[in-house]
Amino acid sequence: MRLSRYFLPVLKETPGDAQIVSHQLMLRAGLIRQTAAGIYAWLPMGHRVLRKIEQIVREEQDRAGAIELLMPTIQSADLWRSSGRYDAYGPEMLRIKDRHNREMLFSPTAEELFTQIFENGARSYRDLPRMLYQIQWKFRDEVRPRFGVMRGREFLMKDAYSFDIDFAGARHSYNRMFMAYLRTFARMGLHAIPMRADTGPIGGDLSHEFIVLAPTGESEVFYHENWEKGRDTSGVDADDPAALEAFIDALNADYAATDEKRDLALEAEAGSALKQSRGIEVGQVFYFGDKYTKAMGVTVQGPDGTTITPEMGSYGIGVSRLMGAIIEASHDKDGIIWPDAVAPFKVALLNLRADDAACAAAADALYARLEAAGVEVLYDDRDERGGAKFATADLIGVPWQLVVGPKGVAAGTVELKRRGAGTREELSVDAAVAQLTA
Amino acid sequence: MRLSRYFLPVLKETPGDAQIVSHQLMLRAGLIRQTAAGIYAWLPMGHRVLRKIEQIVREEQDRAGAIELLMPTIQSADLWRSSGRYDAYGPEMLRIKDRHNREMLFSPTAEELFTQIFENGARSYRDLPRMLYQIQWKFRDEVRPRFGVMRGREFLMKDAYSFDIDFAGARHSYNRMFMAYLRTFARMGLHAIPMRADTGPIGGDLSHEFIVLAPTGESEVFYHENWEKGRDTSGVDADDPAALEAFIDALNADYAATDEKRDLALEAEAGSALKQSRGIEVGQVFYFGDKYTKAMGVTVQGPDGTTITPEMGSYGIGVSRLMGAIIEASHDKDGIIWPDAVAPFKVALLNLRADDAACAAAADALYARLEAAGVEVLYDDRDERGGAKFATADLIGVPWQLVVGPKGVAAGTVELKRRGAGTREELSVDAAVAQLTA
Repeated sequence: MRLSRYFLPVLKETPGDAQIVSHQLMLRAGLIRQTAAGIYAWLPMGHRVLRKIEQIVREEQDRAGAIELLMPTIQSADLWRSSGRYDAYGPEMLRIKDRHNREMLFSPTAEELFTQIFENGARSYRDLPRMLYQIQWKFRDEVRPRFGVMRGREFLMKDAYSFDIDFAGARHSYNRMFMAYLRTFARMGLHAIPMRADTGPIGGDLSHEFIVLAPTGESEVFYHENWEKGRDTSGVDADDPAALEAFIDALNADYAATDEKRDLALEAEAGSALKQSRGIEVGQVFYFGDKYTKAMGVTVQGPDGTTITPEMGSYGIGVSRLMGAIIEASHDKDGIIWPDAVAPFKVALLNLRADDAACAAAADALYARLEAAGVEVLYDDRDERGGAKFATADLIGVPWQLVVGPKGVAAGTVELKRRGAGTREELSVDAAVAQLTA
Repeated sequence: MRLSRYFLPVLKETPGDAQIVSHQLMLRAGLIRQTAAGIYAWLPMGHRVLRKIEQIVREEQDRAGAIELLMPTIQSADLWRSSGRYDAYGPEMLRIKDRHNREMLFSPTAEELFTQIFENGARSYRDLPRMLYQIQWKFRDEVRPRFGVMRGREFLMKDAYSFDIDFAGARHSYNRMFMAYLRTFARMGLHAIPMRADTGPIGGDLSHEFIVLAPTGESEVFYHENWEKGRDTSGVDADDPAALEAFIDALNADYAATDEKRDLALEAEAGSALKQSRGIEVGQVFYFGDKYTKAMGVTVQGPDGTTITPEMGSYGIGVSRLMGAIIEASHDKDGIIWPDAVAPFKVALLNLRADDAACAAAADALYARLEAAGVEVLYDDRDERGGAKFATADLIGVPWQLVVGPKGVAAGTVELKRRGAGTREELSVDAAVAQLTA
């Protein structure tokens, strides 16, 4: 993509109303623009990152055996009355009347609708277990939206729902999602700690929040220092319920809890290994048994002809919020440092002298070569000073910067900078292309 | 995907409330379920087709130089007041009050918001031309939603907006989108005819609707029989304004108009070449000059320091509606016949005897081979009779059916059926795999 033809409105000044660094950088780097309180437009660069995050979430959901579908955003109040939540949900639910004065709402979550759709397609125990999910926009009418996409009103969420014939099955589904979450966040370069959590308006007996440590986080969290190590999930067979349960139990033997779920006895046990921080919730998993299936009268036929009320869990990831969490975890004074897996482009190609024919020809040729090799390149071909181009490249945080200048063009070399480490290397054009296409 | 683990609730009976064949087949084949009047859940198979259609639309938008971003669904009434449309739009706009009693709405289209976002990022004539687009859910509160996704309330739409410094530029942008639409619909196996059309609530001077002929279409249409031939767009250089204009003018020399735009003199001229049919609108392009930029006070600086009010166009494609249009155009008495480019799976692999160990082993092996080769396979491994499996495969309309039965397994052969043509071939397993992976 040539920057001269792109739409990247970066800001020189930090907007005054943005309190936390991810919000400031998302505005400055031209990722988002606020269009109403807690509601954002995703500009082209922000949209690219959002799609990368979404795709990682999708791949790990698919790998866990979940099946993707898509629910509408607007749902009927009657559906939510069938579980008793229409009256219980409170003012965060955006309630709507259509032209025929029918009561509708913008879905803040979708337990009821998934339960109804599941019932429509499942007849017997042979139709279970099933895990269904969607990646869809939700709306929660926060009383005081703030921190940009971290506590917005319209947000992109992955929500999955599991249906099992008994507790053992439901527990296995819970564990599979638990594992999928560990893998999902690790792929984005995030270290997320699962913590026992309250179940809130979803209800249920068992819940973990996945929390990324950050000083700007909304929750205070307490955890054993063992959690600061990475966790290797590669050797675990997620299809083996006993092996998976053992792995997750071993993980959870190390204490980790949010403020609401502290256990002072366990904290005392941890002693000097106990750490305290603030954290950002990026996902939550719930087991709630037959809360919704029972309320909505959903049953399937068992092997012996009896009726079974399926056991459920639900599993959310804040897809748009993750962009903020990643930036909180990965930035410096100059701007964003995107982890490779979610970067909007792999390379920023900077032509330092757009007015120099030899430079422009060399940069054009490099751009064509990288594009032909399938590398995602943002080519700064604008008629701007080198300093402005470096500043923009640092701000937007693309992992590699490939710099074409007059001296290098004369010598047949380019400079390759790694944004995160700040390392620079002068190398031949071929060597640079080889490194970026490896 | 193993059907025994998938979520595909097909219906044996045609639902009584579905009047047109695409609606009937989308319900029967387990693509959608109605969740409220004019609002649908996209089941896993429907979701797959939706994503394929969306991706073709996206690729042709990108090819036309449009840049993708994403706007929120919920917008402020004040934004719509800035163009005067908040009061003008009528009851199809879903109006909402949030918890602070602020007036909001669910976006039925997005001229205002794109204009505002464009203004935010464009300063001078150097920032033009730009074409921005999104693929996002819209809501129009139809008084009488019907025909399934063809006239639903919540629907997926691609909407693009062009910004140019003068009429010549705007006309070129219009032509580029016109060309992109021809290519988009052709890639989906649709023959869409562009027809001069009314501009409706978008406003403006020039508009074409792209119409797929179908007896169930909502509009009556009149066209020269030349339109029944395909149009070869491959040789046209869309970057050359004059060449592109000449190509499109030559196309439009053949008469084609919707009911509202009939020209009886031109129809008389066409004589016996004039055809009459009904049609389904799948896209519409508008040129409306400075209608929104002027109302909203949007200017950029010209080369000579003067201010320029950009000229705009907008360009919609009904992404979810396209699924219905494709089915209207491609089905038979047994079910859907998906064009290859949008099929949810490439192959339905049918094991006719799930209770026969040799059959099951052969089918399992074929499934593994095709999956490893990256072929999208729906493997009917259920314990069902062959007749039921054939009927399901025909209903869901996957382009190829690969049939494993006991006689073939003994002889080392399988049967390969092409769903559309109905042709069947007995061939070796290797030959079948070679054909499906070619």
